[in-house]
Amino acid sequence: MKDNNCIFCKIANGEIPSRTIYENDLFRVILDNGPATEGHALVLPKDHYANLFEIPADTAAEAMKTAQTVAAMLKEKLHADGLNLVQNNGETAGQTVHHFHMHIIPRYKGDGQNILWKPGHPSDQELDAVLGRIKG
Amino acid sequence: MKDNNCIFCKIANGEIPSRTIYENDLFRVILDNGPATEGHALVLPKDHYANLFEIPADTAAEAMKTAQTVAAMLKEKLHADGLNLVQNNGETAGQTVHHFHMHIIPRYKGDGQNILWKPGHPSDQELDAVLGRIKG
Repeated sequence: MKDNNCIFCKIANGEIPSRTIYENDLFRVILDNGPATEGHALVLPKDHYANLFEIPADTAAEAMKTAQTVAAMLKEKLHADGLNLVQNNGETAGQTVHHFHMHIIPRYKGDGQNILWKPGHPSDQELDAVLGRIKG
Repeated sequence: MKDNNCIFCKIANGEIPSRTIYENDLFRVILDNGPATEGHALVLPKDHYANLFEIPADTAAEAMKTAQTVAAMLKEKLHADGLNLVQNNGETAGQTVHHFHMHIIPRYKGDGQNILWKPGHPSDQELDAVLGRIKG
């Protein structure tokens, strides 16, 4: 169901114009207006789900299929060298619009972006402790 | 099919030990040994696919369902404030092991990570030109 106060709902359902590169029954895929790189796109479900914890599993699965279809299209048409899928949940994770979305970011040699993290160096004991908490 | 020269194939199929937090018919989910944050996990298909462009659509969809299941588990058990899904394809995108995998990165307030990008500021004309190349 659509949330009438959500800008991504309005875009996904065509009430606000967008640069749409792909559409199916469940999703609209648009160009991001503040792109990391050329062709940076967003997969937006037409129904409102705040994040990965709220979207039904079957819809999340279809989002991935849609992202894969569009990723192949972007790679071919824009001659990308690589591609990141990024899906953020919660402000702490960088989510700014609270409507589930997946970023498809084509990558080009020398594009100046660095969508990575600083790897940690925990000890075996520390990793085992995390494993214990997850399994406990 | 498994690739006998691929370390993630060996891990996914249990030939190399790992800290496994979840497993089903198609995937093994393990703790990353060089984690961005506590609980950083990898979804590894048991069959070998280099990346998003090679994995069958149905398997990609199942990877997303698996990631969602594990994300909920990590959020609950580790009390994460947020969570990123990241899936990299190609060296230009930061992929270091050429076996499809999804990163599940629980996020915590003040965790010191910044898994984002510098947004660009293209003009409408520049965005229209990209749209034209994708649709052309």
